[in-house]
Amino acid sequence: MANSLPVLTFNPSADDYVWTFGGAPPLARVKSGDTLELFTEDCFAGRVRSEKDLVTEVCEFPFLNPQTGPFYVEGAEPGDTLAVHFVSIEPARDWAASTTVPLFGALTSTHTTATLQPPLPERVWIWQLDRERRTCLFRAHDSDTEVELPMDPMHGTVGVAPANLEVRSALVPDAHGGNMDTPEMRAGVTCYLGVNVAGALFSLGDGHARQGEGETCGVAVETAMNTVITIELVKGVPTPWPRLESDTHIMTAGSARPLEDAFRIAQVDLVQWVARDYGLSELDAYQLVTQGVESPLANVCDTNYTSVAKMRKAFLPSGTSAYGVHETLRERAAAYLAG
Amino acid sequence: MANSLPVLTFNPSADDYVWTFGGAPPLARVKSGDTLELFTEDCFAGRVRSEKDLVTEVCEFPFLNPQTGPFYVEGAEPGDTLAVHFVSIEPARDWAASTTVPLFGALTSTHTTATLQPPLPERVWIWQLDRERRTCLFRAHDSDTEVELPMDPMHGTVGVAPANLEVRSALVPDAHGGNMDTPEMRAGVTCYLGVNVAGALFSLGDGHARQGEGETCGVAVETAMNTVITIELVKGVPTPWPRLESDTHIMTAGSARPLEDAFRIAQVDLVQWVARDYGLSELDAYQLVTQGVESPLANVCDTNYTSVAKMRKAFLPSGTSAYGVHETLRERAAAYLAG
Amino acid sequence: MANSLPVLTFNPSADDYVWTFGGAPPLARVKSGDTLELFTEDCFAGRVRSEKDLVTEVCEFPFLNPQTGPFYVEGAEPGDTLAVHFVSIEPARDWAASTTVPLFGALTSTHTTATLQPPLPERVWIWQLDRERRTCLFRAHDSDTEVELPMDPMHGTVGVAPANLEVRSALVPDAHGGNMDTPEMRAGVTCYLGVNVAGALFSLGDGHARQGEGETCGVAVETAMNTVITIELVKGVPTPWPRLESDTHIMTAGSARPLEDAFRIAQVDLVQWVARDYGLSELDAYQLVTQGVESPLANVCDTNYTSVAKMRKAFLPSGTSAYGVHETLRERAAAYLAG
Amino acid sequence: MANSLPVLTFNPSADDYVWTFGGAPPLARVKSGDTLELFTEDCFAGRVRSEKDLVTEVCEFPFLNPQTGPFYVEGAEPGDTLAVHFVSIEPARDWAASTTVPLFGALTSTHTTATLQPPLPERVWIWQLDRERRTCLFRAHDSDTEVELPMDPMHGTVGVAPANLEVRSALVPDAHGGNMDTPEMRAGVTCYLGVNVAGALFSLGDGHARQGEGETCGVAVETAMNTVITIELVKGVPTPWPRLESDTHIMTAGSARPLEDAFRIAQVDLVQWVARDYGLSELDAYQLVTQGVESPLANVCDTNYTSVAKMRKAFLPSGTSAYGVHETLRERAAAYLAG
Repeated sequence: MANSLPVLTFNPSADDYVWTFGGAPPLARVKSGDTLELFTEDCFAGRVRSEKDLVTEVCEFPFLNPQTGPFYVEGAEPGDTLAVHFVSIEPARDWAASTTVPLFGALTSTHTTATLQPPLPERVWIWQLDRERRTCLFRAHDSDTEVELPMDPMHGTVGVAPANLEVRSALVPDAHGGNMDTPEMRAGVTCYLGVNVAGALFSLGDGHARQGEGETCGVAVETAMNTVITIELVKGVPTPWPRLESDTHIMTAGSARPLEDAFRIAQVDLVQWVARDYGLSELDAYQLVTQGVESPLANVCDTNYTSVAKMRKAFLPSGTSAYGVHETLRERAAAYLAG
Repeated sequence: MANSLPVLTFNPSADDYVWTFGGAPPLARVKSGDTLELFTEDCFAGRVRSEKDLVTEVCEFPFLNPQTGPFYVEGAEPGDTLAVHFVSIEPARDWAASTTVPLFGALTSTHTTATLQPPLPERVWIWQLDRERRTCLFRAHDSDTEVELPMDPMHGTVGVAPANLEVRSALVPDAHGGNMDTPEMRAGVTCYLGVNVAGALFSLGDGHARQGEGETCGVAVETAMNTVITIELVKGVPTPWPRLESDTHIMTAGSARPLEDAFRIAQVDLVQWVARDYGLSELDAYQLVTQGVESPLANVCDTNYTSVAKMRKAFLPSGTSAYGVHETLRERAAAYLAG
Repeated sequence: MANSLPVLTFNPSADDYVWTFGGAPPLARVKSGDTLELFTEDCFAGRVRSEKDLVTEVCEFPFLNPQTGPFYVEGAEPGDTLAVHFVSIEPARDWAASTTVPLFGALTSTHTTATLQPPLPERVWIWQLDRERRTCLFRAHDSDTEVELPMDPMHGTVGVAPANLEVRSALVPDAHGGNMDTPEMRAGVTCYLGVNVAGALFSLGDGHARQGEGETCGVAVETAMNTVITIELVKGVPTPWPRLESDTHIMTAGSARPLEDAFRIAQVDLVQWVARDYGLSELDAYQLVTQGVESPLANVCDTNYTSVAKMRKAFLPSGTSAYGVHETLRERAAAYLAG
Repeated sequence: MANSLPVLTFNPSADDYVWTFGGAPPLARVKSGDTLELFTEDCFAGRVRSEKDLVTEVCEFPFLNPQTGPFYVEGAEPGDTLAVHFVSIEPARDWAASTTVPLFGALTSTHTTATLQPPLPERVWIWQLDRERRTCLFRAHDSDTEVELPMDPMHGTVGVAPANLEVRSALVPDAHGGNMDTPEMRAGVTCYLGVNVAGALFSLGDGHARQGEGETCGVAVETAMNTVITIELVKGVPTPWPRLESDTHIMTAGSARPLEDAFRIAQVDLVQWVARDYGLSELDAYQLVTQGVESPLANVCDTNYTSVAKMRKAFLPSGTSAYGVHETLRERAAAYLAG
């Protein structure tokens, strides 16, 4: 049965990557129902390979966070929603890199939170990935300490072309998705993105073998990924800000500064989603969400900060989400994986 | 064996409550090693009892968030740390109240985030608590919907007298603790608070049968509590911001505005805690925390917002926290509960 | 003598306007030393003409804030600075419009500072401009009150194509300039913009007959303008954020959220400008700027907020700004005006 | 005639100073109509006297920002307004001090905007005050540069006991006034403060020979002052946030974080003041303030940031401010000065 699935494979060459959402011609045209096997390069464009490869020396701005795509989805128009379901996200290497970057990250002044202080030292950590045991090995620089953390692969970046005629760097998260850097973007999850331009023009990249919530130093356990997604176009249903759905939760992601605005966006969107699709008034939904919501931070380091609001489905009245496609996508994913 | 524990019981009368951290004479003197059985009234001082009891009509500002205490801890001095371990937190009633409050909460303009818009409608929800089944029952106002959420009792407020000669309202969270409103403050957890004045003068209140992360509408499932704590004084160890420890995690809580500053405070404190007590350099700790941290929001509605940073102990090198008292407190709690 | 000045005239037709910085082909090629006579349409694209013309009914998003340009400056390359001197800014009509716009402005919740409150009422005010007497007449809606304010014409928007491969809406202020909305952008002032792409691709628009500091309701006294600028390319001198120079002051403009970051950017840039061009160490410049700076807000309503830092030249040690072109531009302007 | 004015003189001894608003017994009881001649010590409690006197070595936290007062105003009750008119503010010495303070100021990380970076170097600048020529002389540390700035004496701190049973450090600005650090607090200005407790308990301190807007490095040109104020109690008129009035302007001062909230508070208060006292609807006042307001920053370094909103009286419809006391106070001041 699985062999009847339309599966497309994309292994971009170095020249194929794009560095923005919007403003680039499509890599390919795809259809609702398609399953895509993709390779994504790491956020450094693969240039940080050892502890000697400092970002400021080996990387070339603005050529960071390479995106695989964009894909033109046949029939997608403004006002529709694109559902991107993550079938699997698997590290393509047995190592990953993380770094400090001067004047970037949450616990340093930056070009925006500007001070007169010098930057923190620049440093690279190479993590060993044990893909069998599903672990990431941290080796300290300044001592012999080693710690093993569970692997939990995810994509930091997934998005569509933005609205308002804009072209945004792939380092930016906003209403079009982009560099949201939430660990919730893992296999088994469906991401809903509002379509702003004909064809949606979605792309993804920035694989992380794992990431803490907030991406505190600005850089996760960065690695190339072999990722499988399957997509579905939901016609006539707009989505104001990116939303996610897992088997257990519905989620929203707001991106803005200051961080409380990212929180407000995500929580308002969750309240309104619950009100609209689960039969509550807005004030009743406000009360229910207040008592039931989980609010893990995604990133507090990018050009906009991202805050996630999660509501356990078991905490909601029975209702039908306007999307109604997650189960179908799960089945299609299962068929692919069984295939 | 339990009967050998020094156990003190406090059931405040209406006049016994205090409304500030600092500025009030001690309710009692206690000693390191004492176990305290306490009653705490809800944040409304018990005045919201039905859906007709609007906060602006039945409550009297600033007499909100009554505190049980303060307790003078013998021998506590600035530079010490007070460890407050929550043995049990049990709702004292079979119902709880939540409300909207005009110009208060995260999804409305407020007296601080001031706009020219009128406030949202004022509304009360009474939740039924099933203490056997450990559930909280939500009944919608504007429809027949009912939803049951798990009970997860916690204290919104626990703190000591502040530094700098200040007296702060019990509605404020800051470096002295106070109204942090984190669901992590549940039974089984030890809270560490830096001592600012002789005797520490700690108090607690604001019990929640449960609360979502961020306390979005500003008010949790508020109820009176029968709470048991056991305390320990850690001499000569300062604590800059409140910290928590469970069997599985160490945690920090930063309170500030904007929300990214609360995040920064909590993450810096966690990085420095990990560096100091687990044998890593600060930059190595920065890297490890970045990849391992959980960052759930506590409140985004109070006078300061509170962000929590949690690190799983299993993700840390073996080390000895300077406090070294959580296990002892757990044992003492077990003895009490077995008692 | 004035007739020897190279003067170019641009009266865009409706199709000539652009709505972004970057992403549009040049309207014309110009040279360093050229003087340009321009017509700019108002931010509503001329569609709000009476108190009945509500923005949500007569305007079409994202076709707001039309830009006259972009102009390709021969020889301009990344790392250069473009100096745009405002020779004159004169209202092209004897009326101007201001409005509230739902969920836009500083004293309302917005799509970013999201709440559950309904928007403020939508309203239009038509201001009469007396170009002889240089006044703007305010007529209240809800009473017979009339107040006359001095005319003080300025451009809300002036910028170049952004860096990082981006295209930004003309409503956005950032490092490339854009919609900074500072009343300091008046005749007699030189604006310095760092060049990010070949040809700089600068444009301007959004004329205001006058504007308060902060543009509180989000909309100034908006009108079409007949504006004369003269430009100069400063080769090999980069400019990190927009800077301005008048006969009496040097100024910087930072754009970011939260507002303190806009302040930090502007003040750091001013400190570093003073240090570099006026012979002080950075710490000495920090001290001198602290005591001498004026810090008027520009806008607290746009996608980024803008904060200006102004230092009176009389408060600075004698020094030579790296630009060294303001006096030349003033002389050229005087020649034009005398012509 | 002047000798008929009730004039009281206060030269506090070292033990008389207080370090908080609220929580201290009155220094004296005064009456509406009284004129007070005061000495105020500088923010360092006079301990920084040369470039070798580093704050962290010579000052003792929290004994900073000594207040002269508090004064108990006979008959003042919650709901009233206290008008404090500055008759004169004159430096009591011919020198002043400014400093950097580690992890304090706008262009450095702080204990709240916490980073892992080391603090900026600690430095002291001694400014010479020429009280005849009304100038302040800056001498650079790292070069021979000297610059003379005009003297413009002001008080950084003036306030009353706060509401909500609180006691706040004299370093804090909030609704009770306090450490607002606005250069607008100069001679000739009336400051209106809402009374929160019986007697108001106002105090003042923190004289600055001059200060830039925003107090960028956190410390102004700090000096002791001989200051004369005259006070008036306005019964039954509440004032939500501090307001100021000069001969030419009415002004509001909002204090909060993030800075946009301080801006919102000040602008909402100005809009509502204009609406109430000058006969405009709130939306008309919103429009008029938007086009006429000046928005200079006060401080972007204290525990709350302070933003000022100023409206030129000539830009307002003729109206009568509810206070109606500024002219009387100006006359009384003139009589005193003539005396």
